[in-house]
Amino acid sequence: MLAICPGSFDPVTNGHLDIIERAAKVFGKVIIAVAPNPIKAALFTVEERIEMLREVCSKWPNVEVDSFTGLLVEYAKSRDADVIVKGLRAVSDFEFEFQMALMNRQQEPSIETIFMMTGAEYSYLSSSIVKEVASLGGSVEGLIPEAVLSRLVERIQGKGRGIAR
Amino acid sequence: MLAICPGSFDPVTNGHLDIIERAAKVFGKVIIAVAPNPIKAALFTVEERIEMLREVCSKWPNVEVDSFTGLLVEYAKSRDADVIVKGLRAVSDFEFEFQMALMNRQQEPSIETIFMMTGAEYSYLSSSIVKEVASLGGSVEGLIPEAVLSRLVERIQGKGRGIAR
Amino acid sequence: MLAICPGSFDPVTNGHLDIIERAAKVFGKVIIAVAPNPIKAALFTVEERIEMLREVCSKWPNVEVDSFTGLLVEYAKSRDADVIVKGLRAVSDFEFEFQMALMNRQQEPSIETIFMMTGAEYSYLSSSIVKEVASLGGSVEGLIPEAVLSRLVERIQGKGRGIAR
Amino acid sequence: MLAICPGSFDPVTNGHLDIIERAAKVFGKVIIAVAPNPIKAALFTVEERIEMLREVCSKWPNVEVDSFTGLLVEYAKSRDADVIVKGLRAVSDFEFEFQMALMNRQQEPSIETIFMMTGAEYSYLSSSIVKEVASLGGSVEGLIPEAVLSRLVERIQGKGRGIAR
Amino acid sequence: MLAICPGSFDPVTNGHLDIIERAAKVFGKVIIAVAPNPIKAALFTVEERIEMLREVCSKWPNVEVDSFTGLLVEYAKSRDADVIVKGLRAVSDFEFEFQMALMNRQQEPSIETIFMMTGAEYSYLSSSIVKEVASLGGSVEGLIPEAVLSRLVERIQGKGRGIAR
Amino acid sequence: MLAICPGSFDPVTNGHLDIIERAAKVFGKVIIAVAPNPIKAALFTVEERIEMLREVCSKWPNVEVDSFTGLLVEYAKSRDADVIVKGLRAVSDFEFEFQMALMNRQQEPSIETIFMMTGAEYSYLSSSIVKEVASLGGSVEGLIPEAVLSRLVERIQGKGRGIAR
Repeated sequence: MLAICPGSFDPVTNGHLDIIERAAKVFGKVIIAVAPNPIKAALFTVEERIEMLREVCSKWPNVEVDSFTGLLVEYAKSRDADVIVKGLRAVSDFEFEFQMALMNRQQEPSIETIFMMTGAEYSYLSSSIVKEVASLGGSVEGLIPEAVLSRLVERIQGKGRGIAR
Repeated sequence: MLAICPGSFDPVTNGHLDIIERAAKVFGKVIIAVAPNPIKAALFTVEERIEMLREVCSKWPNVEVDSFTGLLVEYAKSRDADVIVKGLRAVSDFEFEFQMALMNRQQEPSIETIFMMTGAEYSYLSSSIVKEVASLGGSVEGLIPEAVLSRLVERIQGKGRGIAR
Repeated sequence: MLAICPGSFDPVTNGHLDIIERAAKVFGKVIIAVAPNPIKAALFTVEERIEMLREVCSKWPNVEVDSFTGLLVEYAKSRDADVIVKGLRAVSDFEFEFQMALMNRQQEPSIETIFMMTGAEYSYLSSSIVKEVASLGGSVEGLIPEAVLSRLVERIQGKGRGIAR
Repeated sequence: MLAICPGSFDPVTNGHLDIIERAAKVFGKVIIAVAPNPIKAALFTVEERIEMLREVCSKWPNVEVDSFTGLLVEYAKSRDADVIVKGLRAVSDFEFEFQMALMNRQQEPSIETIFMMTGAEYSYLSSSIVKEVASLGGSVEGLIPEAVLSRLVERIQGKGRGIAR
Repeated sequence: MLAICPGSFDPVTNGHLDIIERAAKVFGKVIIAVAPNPIKAALFTVEERIEMLREVCSKWPNVEVDSFTGLLVEYAKSRDADVIVKGLRAVSDFEFEFQMALMNRQQEPSIETIFMMTGAEYSYLSSSIVKEVASLGGSVEGLIPEAVLSRLVERIQGKGRGIAR
Repeated sequence: MLAICPGSFDPVTNGHLDIIERAAKVFGKVIIAVAPNPIKAALFTVEERIEMLREVCSKWPNVEVDSFTGLLVEYAKSRDADVIVKGLRAVSDFEFEFQMALMNRQQEPSIETIFMMTGAEYSYLSSSIVKEVASLGGSVEGLIPEAVLSRLVERIQGKGRGIAR
């Protein structure tokens, strides 16, 4: 069975990897599908995000990294996918994911959305909060893969971007 | 009894019409009040939104379409309205609507906010998600009135606007 | 891949069947596992529930009906199951399901819990509400399979059980 | 327009009265419909609850107190009601009310459920919490009408019933 | 500053201990106040619960174990407490705790309720789920203190009590 | 014990003051820490916000007003703070606050986040909604301190900024 795991992955976090690993155990093949996000300015280009994902996912032979534009369900159909896999964090955007899944079902009833739970230790983790903390000089070790860590620090350094709450 | 049904309606969806129809059965008169939204860039002008609403609501004789600027409760008072009607979706911004309603009550205790439930089949529907799907080339037939469909496609075409998740 | 679909099914509703059908499309084999519930008094015995489930699920060749006692993850392991499948309703006991899934993961990390979404039209449906409505003389046609309908009416009739809200 | 305001009212609280008063301003006539609740043991009989409600609602000429058994929508139809009115508390059983309202709509699509918001100062109030506090010797002045206060104290006294958290 | 940490503790879990430890760091003195719960049948008597709590909390010199009957705020006043401390789990009864806290404030405005967060790894833990899993033969090692483990197993053994979902 | 009360305070509302007053009663010293927010355009500069806070908090001798840049937990450590205090509104961003608190704990486990509840009458209040209402010509008397009122009106006047819903 073929599963699509869509997201921005800007950048990939250990919470993402937790879901990818679980999906790779359950499904025969998993395609990580990087979506461009023209509204929020991205920190990394789609190409950079793909490169980092390929590096950290190389240990799972049944995981492929790709990108797509346009409608997710169209992409899923073009790849002959059976399901879309989304991670749910205990502290999460549950309602938003439900809305997206119902819309995707309306667009293409043959493709099911399946939700998997991240480990409780990643319940608060998101790419946004990682970027915010890093931009304020906080450590994000243990929150993102090591291969991503240096690139994130380098990218953010000198930007002077900072959000404090 | 006179009910105000406020919103951006950019554009009107079948979820909106579901609530308007229910409100038109319950209340003697319903005024759909189009609000400008200077923060989010609108796809249609207030005038265009009014025109579309008038077209699709013409079947209900007790429904009037209007627009307003300024505070909603001030507009409601100026029209001698008894209640404000808001739709709640099962998958919804419940907390946000509650906050707005409590603030409106603080501003003008004499005007009650009343919540009605959309049909379960519209629980995921919003103007934003409709625009997003259409901009990515997805079909929104059955989600918005036919009269709005062609205008939406035309407006979005050539814009190259696209959001993918 | 083998999926376990656990529940009380007292009795099976069309919402349950919606999830079972979706699971049967996604997974190679689905075992519906009827759990006894010693706390809440059941309306049907485990045997009756199994019989009704077998009748309404006979159209799906890869669906088996079974029952279990003891810990769900132990049963899942004894059947060599890969995943536990749970349905989420838009209007739902989301937090409760999350708690159960995290506890099951703690008990047996090798078995993943996977969530699927019921159709929006079943978002309010549960065995409890069906029994309540039937006991008050309301019609539950369209909410439960026809094969269950007559048995439910017969069982409830003469009981004088009634809950009103 | 005729509105039904259903509930157990065991006993009526100031939060209930807040909703009843708001409903009485919005709708031409309001029928408070006391439901028996055979599952939870009631503190007051249906007759006592009706008597207390009549006493505290006598100031609103368009409010009638009644009771019903069986299905709420059947009762609503028998009274030619247009809507069912339910109160939502800011801290509330929102999901439960939604489920009930969708089920009621399934049973009888012609009767709309309408939600009104209690005052923020009653957001935590329920008959259950009032009974619990009173049974532990706490003061519930200001939480229930004065006419109910003495009856509640009298009823609870000598019962030795107590819930502590 | 003196903090009261109320609960049923039937039995104490590692999630409780996590909160107690955090509270003991923040507040000068912490009183764990065991509440009887006459509605739900308890597995351990109040005396047994106190004994187990004393054993596992003996390492914190500023933590005292006590019990109370009646209203929590009355007990808090009788002990000259400054605050009530409640743990919030990420997967939690947030709304219920808010309701209780607002009611307690209504009863006694001088005593503040303060919420602390359990560690994410305990987000799914409760005394009820621990008892349920143990009664079904599951392991609860790592979920409750070792000193409680043998007593729980002994108490449950031979009861034949079992809840399956 | 030293508590940090962080926020944007753009401008301070009576809901903020309610929490500050409660914190000042519970903790030996409270530092209000104004955070710059480079993403959302602020209405008042950090200096203006500090000035207004100092004016309205002068009645509490154990409350200090300060500002910070960078990571909140770093600032908290630099001030030798014991806890971070956040207000929770009954109608609130509970999930967001939980995420921030868990991230802060990951960054610095020694500093606890503590949640306090605003009064129910402030459950809908936020700086954003106050600015929105004021910009539309609504009255915000009773929602913000008097000392802030004139400055807010003056600042907003002539801006033509307006959000309507």
